[in-house]
Amino acid sequence: MEKLANTQHEIHPLLKARWSPRAFDSRPLDPSVLPSLFEAARWAPSGGNNQPWAFVVFPADGSEARRQIEDALTGNNREWAPRAPLLVLAVAMPHPRLGTVGPYSYYDLGQAVTQLTVQATALGLFVHQMAGFDADKARQVAGLPDTCEPMVMIAIGHYGDYTHLSEALRERELAPRVRKPLAEFVFHARWGQSLFPAPA
Amino acid sequence: MEKLANTQHEIHPLLKARWSPRAFDSRPLDPSVLPSLFEAARWAPSGGNNQPWAFVVFPADGSEARRQIEDALTGNNREWAPRAPLLVLAVAMPHPRLGTVGPYSYYDLGQAVTQLTVQATALGLFVHQMAGFDADKARQVAGLPDTCEPMVMIAIGHYGDYTHLSEALRERELAPRVRKPLAEFVFHARWGQSLFPAPA
Repeated sequence: MEKLANTQHEIHPLLKARWSPRAFDSRPLDPSVLPSLFEAARWAPSGGNNQPWAFVVFPADGSEARRQIEDALTGNNREWAPRAPLLVLAVAMPHPRLGTVGPYSYYDLGQAVTQLTVQATALGLFVHQMAGFDADKARQVAGLPDTCEPMVMIAIGHYGDYTHLSEALRERELAPRVRKPLAEFVFHARWGQSLFPAPA
Repeated sequence: MEKLANTQHEIHPLLKARWSPRAFDSRPLDPSVLPSLFEAARWAPSGGNNQPWAFVVFPADGSEARRQIEDALTGNNREWAPRAPLLVLAVAMPHPRLGTVGPYSYYDLGQAVTQLTVQATALGLFVHQMAGFDADKARQVAGLPDTCEPMVMIAIGHYGDYTHLSEALRERELAPRVRKPLAEFVFHARWGQSLFPAPA
């Protein structure tokens, strides 16, 4: 389903087309897709080129690991996300010298996942990130080292049939996409001084 | 200057072409470029659609504000970044309910800046993010509220002439781009179990 961003100014078609659906199709991904998704993440920029990111991938292969990671989802993510052929746990890694996860670990992981998302969109796939999961359970299922931090679970797949969603989720699936106006968060030299003032 | 990523697997041309140069041209940006850069950032995904990002833009307009923000740069960023026609301070905003900047503020800001970077690349521009700046000074120059956190300074512009760089920076400008192999950070269901094992 197309749900193009209602932009105030033109942006690249891949950014305009990206959105986070819940109606995934359970059809498996072509195996050739996986390397390109993570290759895209790999070439993200990062502070000091530290690349503080890692990914643990759970294909819908009927495995016990997949069942367990689905069980780590919370709230209504438990309803829709298990249909996605790929669930990926995205992990923030410690700074190589400081040994701890810090602000730039999170920031750079966000950059890597966005590059993955652009690549997925270019391949006709959809990505939906979730913070709604039990991080301790996910950590245990994936066997993560203590020093890193699971940040998001990512559902990746083809678009499916939204009429399979429950009433509440169907409503969210069809709701218009909204964002703050540029006037509220882009300033010229000084906080509060909008670079693109709203029309009077 | 082209400096394509030396990819193990094919990725979208915009991701392959993106890199962080130091040899910016001082030629001003076409004013029509600015709205599209921030519109691209605007449509990034974020946890709970909180959009915890803001930007303070400093064009090279000879203003006192621009001079002061250049003066907030540290290390060798002071040498090359002032040539860029646009310097942007990217700011992580507090969670709207919790009132504090947290891991997802940083993560989502990283997503927004990556979308801005994809758009800049599509427009033939280059982006170089810096963590090397005096955050307190930048906060003061931009008049940021106490509750938010300046994360990166972003230089944006056309590519210039790298022979103008000092010897040390010229060497970095021409050095090959490197990343960890996929085998080191993409795992199958369990930490340490590579999804793409390195060839034996």
